[in-house]
Amino acid sequence: MPHKVTPESPIGIFDSGIGGLTVVRAIQAALPEEKIIYFGDTARVPYGPKSQVTIRKYAADDTAILMRYQPKLIIVACNTVSALALDVVEKTCGSIPVIGVLKAGAGLAVEATENSRIGVIGTQATICSNAYAVTINSLNPDAEVFSRACPLFVPLAEEGLVDHPATRLIAREYLDEFAGKDIDTLVLGCTHYPILRRIIGETVGPAIHIIDSAEAVARRTRELLDESGLLNKTREQALPHLLVSDLPQKFSRIYKLFMGSELPDVELVEV
Amino acid sequence: MPHKVTPESPIGIFDSGIGGLTVVRAIQAALPEEKIIYFGDTARVPYGPKSQVTIRKYAADDTAILMRYQPKLIIVACNTVSALALDVVEKTCGSIPVIGVLKAGAGLAVEATENSRIGVIGTQATICSNAYAVTINSLNPDAEVFSRACPLFVPLAEEGLVDHPATRLIAREYLDEFAGKDIDTLVLGCTHYPILRRIIGETVGPAIHIIDSAEAVARRTRELLDESGLLNKTREQALPHLLVSDLPQKFSRIYKLFMGSELPDVELVEV
Repeated sequence: MPHKVTPESPIGIFDSGIGGLTVVRAIQAALPEEKIIYFGDTARVPYGPKSQVTIRKYAADDTAILMRYQPKLIIVACNTVSALALDVVEKTCGSIPVIGVLKAGAGLAVEATENSRIGVIGTQATICSNAYAVTINSLNPDAEVFSRACPLFVPLAEEGLVDHPATRLIAREYLDEFAGKDIDTLVLGCTHYPILRRIIGETVGPAIHIIDSAEAVARRTRELLDESGLLNKTREQALPHLLVSDLPQKFSRIYKLFMGSELPDVELVEV
Repeated sequence: MPHKVTPESPIGIFDSGIGGLTVVRAIQAALPEEKIIYFGDTARVPYGPKSQVTIRKYAADDTAILMRYQPKLIIVACNTVSALALDVVEKTCGSIPVIGVLKAGAGLAVEATENSRIGVIGTQATICSNAYAVTINSLNPDAEVFSRACPLFVPLAEEGLVDHPATRLIAREYLDEFAGKDIDTLVLGCTHYPILRRIIGETVGPAIHIIDSAEAVARRTRELLDESGLLNKTREQALPHLLVSDLPQKFSRIYKLFMGSELPDVELVEV
């Protein structure tokens, strides 16, 4: 039985860990009136290197946790889940609309490209699923998509090596994939990657549009809430309500790195 | 009720993921007659960055899975569990003896050092627990222990960047911690690190003994089975029986990197 939603209902956002905080930040910037419930599955992070069966099970668990808070909308901030288990999320949350970062990012890339040649970077699982290429081609059948998994970008971002020569070396090696491909647009297909946006941008050069899917999600969220008359107009700014399945020592340091502010209270939930 | 053990009973080994395969390899080399059951909790890896509460829960689960196979000995190949939850393992397996990599590695380091100045590297959780320093000092109260967490070594090893300039840069930065400390011994306090042993050795220089705790565990296992009359004499060589909680795509590549041979059949277990 789906719950009743109102403009005051919260927006539910989940991710395999804390990378989705880049989406929280983008939503707060674009829609400061909205209440946000964020769940990060920090006890089972990362999803990227795991199998599809396991990722689908975790996606159902994560959605069920957010549904306890009767959200008006669910945002899948995890690219891996968006690629491999969006149907599981939609099934678990009934008639509540779902936005996945993947489709939002793919849509913005198709709008941005002028030569229909698009690069995508992400985790191993996201890239192997080929979901970005499929989604981009469903929106623009003429688009050519070039992909590259960049597994070290997440640990490098979490270590805060946002301007380190080792990060530059690894970025150069990963992004060399796109040399000679003549792409004009590059999708950051993992929510951690905006943290490394500067190094990535400098490595590929200023001629290439960088698509941050967190910003794309925020745009799509505004459109969807507006269309359905569910934009919150009450203007009571609040901190996001944070749920995590584990509270590791480094959490507050990483929260600060992602959000640019001190960690508020967090609630521990069992998975 | 503890089960009956015989020399033919298997040795149970577990780790948070696949790093513990370096221990499997060391045991196979030292004790080729022994049957080995290995469980890697690949659905919930890594343990290193998670909280103590979560790590202790996972340790109990992992031990219970191995106990189904009625082992004569349990080896905790995970440094994080050895540091934070060895008592949980001992409680879960009743009278079956338990060997943790941490104590084995600490013991070998104390034997190897000549000036009682020992360096330890490991994951964030292992280093923050201070367990190596406490264990080394319980064996040699005069020893001085210097520690450094090296969180990027695990993803770099898993990416196979065993001889990459970025790995060298990061190793230099991490291991610079020991400059001027006059250590003569360095403990690889994480089962992944033997994969990067060459770069680590070249970075600290040839004067420093490198302690591989997988080798230390194999030595301790031989002693303990010998003392208790439980060495297997039947000489029927077999592949290790592999259990995992998830079977990710990269598993066979990483198995080969760690074991130097093709992946045998693996069994999926639920956690």
